[in-house]
Amino acid sequence: MEVIGIKIAIDKNINTPIYLQIFEQIRGQILRGELMPGFKLPPERKLADSLGVNRSTVLNAYRELKAEGFVESKVGNGTIVLACIQEEINKTNEFSEPTWNHIFSQYSAGFDSHMVKDLLALASRKDVISFATGIAAPESGPIEALEGIERDIIENRNFRPLLHSPTEGFVTLRSAISGLMHKRGVYCSHEEVMILSGSQQGIDIAARVLLDPGDIVVAEEPTFFPAVQAFKATGARIMGVPVDENGMRIDDLEQLLQRYRPKLIYTMPSFHNPSGVDMDLARRRRLIELANRYRILIMEDDAYGDLCYEGHQLPLLKSMDGSGYVIYISTFSKNVYSGLRLGWMVAHKKVVTRFAQVKQIMDLHSSSLSQAIIEKFILNGGIEKHISKLCKDYKYKRDAMCDALSRFAPAGMTWTRPKGGYYVWCNLPEGISATDLVSKAAEKKVVFVPGTSFYLSSGQGDNQIRLNFTYASLSDIAVGVRYLCEAIKELTESSKKNDPYMDIEINPIV
Amino acid sequence: MEVIGIKIAIDKNINTPIYLQIFEQIRGQILRGELMPGFKLPPERKLADSLGVNRSTVLNAYRELKAEGFVESKVGNGTIVLACIQEEINKTNEFSEPTWNHIFSQYSAGFDSHMVKDLLALASRKDVISFATGIAAPESGPIEALEGIERDIIENRNFRPLLHSPTEGFVTLRSAISGLMHKRGVYCSHEEVMILSGSQQGIDIAARVLLDPGDIVVAEEPTFFPAVQAFKATGARIMGVPVDENGMRIDDLEQLLQRYRPKLIYTMPSFHNPSGVDMDLARRRRLIELANRYRILIMEDDAYGDLCYEGHQLPLLKSMDGSGYVIYISTFSKNVYSGLRLGWMVAHKKVVTRFAQVKQIMDLHSSSLSQAIIEKFILNGGIEKHISKLCKDYKYKRDAMCDALSRFAPAGMTWTRPKGGYYVWCNLPEGISATDLVSKAAEKKVVFVPGTSFYLSSGQGDNQIRLNFTYASLSDIAVGVRYLCEAIKELTESSKKNDPYMDIEINPIV
Repeated sequence: MEVIGIKIAIDKNINTPIYLQIFEQIRGQILRGELMPGFKLPPERKLADSLGVNRSTVLNAYRELKAEGFVESKVGNGTIVLACIQEEINKTNEFSEPTWNHIFSQYSAGFDSHMVKDLLALASRKDVISFATGIAAPESGPIEALEGIERDIIENRNFRPLLHSPTEGFVTLRSAISGLMHKRGVYCSHEEVMILSGSQQGIDIAARVLLDPGDIVVAEEPTFFPAVQAFKATGARIMGVPVDENGMRIDDLEQLLQRYRPKLIYTMPSFHNPSGVDMDLARRRRLIELANRYRILIMEDDAYGDLCYEGHQLPLLKSMDGSGYVIYISTFSKNVYSGLRLGWMVAHKKVVTRFAQVKQIMDLHSSSLSQAIIEKFILNGGIEKHISKLCKDYKYKRDAMCDALSRFAPAGMTWTRPKGGYYVWCNLPEGISATDLVSKAAEKKVVFVPGTSFYLSSGQGDNQIRLNFTYASLSDIAVGVRYLCEAIKELTESSKKNDPYMDIEINPIV
Repeated sequence: MEVIGIKIAIDKNINTPIYLQIFEQIRGQILRGELMPGFKLPPERKLADSLGVNRSTVLNAYRELKAEGFVESKVGNGTIVLACIQEEINKTNEFSEPTWNHIFSQYSAGFDSHMVKDLLALASRKDVISFATGIAAPESGPIEALEGIERDIIENRNFRPLLHSPTEGFVTLRSAISGLMHKRGVYCSHEEVMILSGSQQGIDIAARVLLDPGDIVVAEEPTFFPAVQAFKATGARIMGVPVDENGMRIDDLEQLLQRYRPKLIYTMPSFHNPSGVDMDLARRRRLIELANRYRILIMEDDAYGDLCYEGHQLPLLKSMDGSGYVIYISTFSKNVYSGLRLGWMVAHKKVVTRFAQVKQIMDLHSSSLSQAIIEKFILNGGIEKHISKLCKDYKYKRDAMCDALSRFAPAGMTWTRPKGGYYVWCNLPEGISATDLVSKAAEKKVVFVPGTSFYLSSGQGDNQIRLNFTYASLSDIAVGVRYLCEAIKELTESSKKNDPYMDIEINPIV
């Protein structure tokens, strides 16, 4: 409520006495120079009436203001804001806003979320068909994972999910996860498991714990770009190894290892983002062998490994790691709920210790409530059942997308049929730019991520696009792919129109 | 279950067929070199019996192993692990564990959670009276904040708390927090509010966004040490300004600003951790004035400001900030629940944008579920009521601790009587070392944090201790203070015994 130049918001539901609320708010306005020296406060009765409080309440507020020297009252002249306190404040207010560009660190200067952020904003609109975000459909989530959590806390007075956990996570959850890992062929103890606030945190901690400026990191190219951002931020150099239909090209990798001796190999061997490729067994084994021979750490990002729609999962790199070179990370974002922000790492105990020291200054620990929910969901077997269900649903969706592409795709367009994961990776017909296609498809309310986002050097990937098939409904997948293919055809037409030889035909000036 | 040299764990509740479970686990053991070439797998019937499965199930598993070249079967000779696949693996296993100390980054080398971690472990024991941790008593939490959350999600199919939020946090929560800030005299819009995964994350992001190696940060001394760790990790230099009963000594600060031009002033003006001091109004105003004059940012850490037990809160630095030099951070850990890991920042929009870019690679966003819980608790007015209740409870506890100290403290010991916050700060009698007292008090099952933990340079603070009064019960506070004071007296006695002059009396050799 605004009364004669002063803004006052009273809240009768809180325990702060009303006179103190009035006092504090007027004081604030004086301190910020919003009420200038000489300003006359409204008469007590008038302010009281307009706020709907007793006159004595306003009287008390004004008395406090006088006691602290902010105002004075003179008979017949009302209550006046004093100048003495104002002087320095006025000086202060002459100062200008900081010149932010000179203030921000070198480290933070490299961050730019560019087009992807705009795409995600667009993708969240209800009238848009999104193949852009790497998320599940909201209604496909395991809502049963929440069941009983509230009662357990309130009725059983089990406060654990609301209080601090150790930085490494609750031991019971770490043990439950080591049980999951055993089923994946990794016989780790809970001490080798650390809870993360999503797997991205594991990547960021790895960057901080392992990389010094000038160090080299090797990654597949294309690759998951937020990982590259985290590595680059430490001053490390990122080098790409091409991917073919069997995963990272290990011969290329070995040449690079011989020449540059990188510190870390970042890889997503199973159902790679964005290419969808599953690294074959022979390459997995050679990768482990090379890591050991050249003494280079591997970060195995297994965000999608358990979403396998055909055949069976190939062994994790971590399951072949006899000596401790593999740091395994995964997440509950793709198979449970992304909003819980929970992931985990499996690594040598010494790595866990060092990672925990850094995590401690980052966020102390991950949400205890999220930890409790996931722990229960693992221990009651719900997570395994849910993953089986997801695999069935996502297989349908993948098939729907590939079928629609077969039906509608223009000549010259190719795409993968991934055995698992979240993404179909497409090559556009020659001469079609993925960046141009983003705008053209957006007109038809279809969004996706252009290939350029996944490459280390600019200029690459403009002939490729990544399509997520887990978020949209089956019918939206069919419709969206059709619109997308129409957009490609329209671009093809217009590029033909712009063909210089055609221009010569139309304008035969020469 | 272990059968004749192979470990197999079968889970009949998951959808992975049992033959695949057997196949994957044997394959893992071969790949890791646990089953050596020439090893004879158990006969199918024998393995089937001991696992309680059909013989055909084991047969299928063995068939897969043969198909992938891991084993071969010869009539009369059973199923044998093959050597060809083993060769490289064996080579691999000759490699040794990485030499971790050469691998970890310079950045991470400075981290050491030393004694504090041990203290916290000790503090969590049920038979120990803890004055060490800065946490609330579990039973004093606002359990009602959880009420209805589960029903809202499950029955109303409101999935928002389980899905992604924007990196800056849900707009509705940011708006609710800007409402809280208005009541504290800060008229910010939701765009100036950013959600954090606890206020420690705000400190860490500030370090990354604002500091380059060699930059200088000024902090009170003593100060909150995890903040110092985060600043130091970027290669910045930290300089301390002494604190007296009115807060940071601003004259000392100004000298330092003139000489060194630091990048950032980190301060906890309200109910400072560890000293409990509330910076007076004159100093708050001068601090703002100096920040503007020398163009230096202030990070105002307001973790304890709303826990005010006497008089009324002094105005926030942010409420006097006309030009944008103040970055305000606070947390819901001290007044709601620490396990939710939620805090917030209020700053210039350009600062919010840059902070969000860095937060994006750190953890993408904070727990959506925690955000939903806090948002509801703010909007239904529960949080204000709860804070009022906490203030009453903690006032009693503070009084109980000060009363017990008056009763039991030995001559020469002094302590503060803080007007708010979590901590009583004590000076020990001359000659008593806080570090020695830690061990002596631990024998009596009382723990606290020695002053040394809060100083920038080693050797300082060994005559001071920090006592938290919010965690222990009223009766434990009385008993714990008595034991603590007994421990001090015992140390005094033994130091008298070790007095060299007394030694001369006892052993008059010279």
